[in-house]
Amino acid sequence: MRVSVLVRPKAGILDPQGEAVEGSLRKLGFSVSEARVGRVIDLEVESGSADEARTQVDQMCHKLLANPLIESYEIELHD
Amino acid sequence: MRVSVLVRPKAGILDPQGEAVEGSLRKLGFSVSEARVGRVIDLEVESGSADEARTQVDQMCHKLLANPLIESYEIELHD
Repeated sequence: MRVSVLVRPKAGILDPQGEAVEGSLRKLGFSVSEARVGRVIDLEVESGSADEARTQVDQMCHKLLANPLIESYEIELHD
Repeated sequence: MRVSVLVRPKAGILDPQGEAVEGSLRKLGFSVSEARVGRVIDLEVESGSADEARTQVDQMCHKLLANPLIESYEIELHD
């Protein structure tokens, strides 16, 4: 099953990459604010069902893909 | 208008970060393949309409957010 995981810095957590992107976009003349930069991880997961895939990916997030202290994550199942 | 941009390495382009994630997940016992790592950029864009916002963000992608030679991008408008 094809899965996407979106990992984002939590609200209130400093995001230097987002600040840099926002500053650069403004210098280029764009009217933007509140820029935040996170990661998207696409994976093919072997699993018998959508529920099982979601459980597996949730474990992956806790163990490797996200730092739950400073990042939130969102799991999207495709197919 | 709240906008998310998903930037991903194009198919066939080497993705060392994705390979590292896949290797680590397998070592942890997960059955995964085809891992790819990209970026998600969330932004607030000042614009009068959804069409205008999309045009603006498309320009941002070309000028700063993505490298069209090796990355593809997807624009999601919220609200």
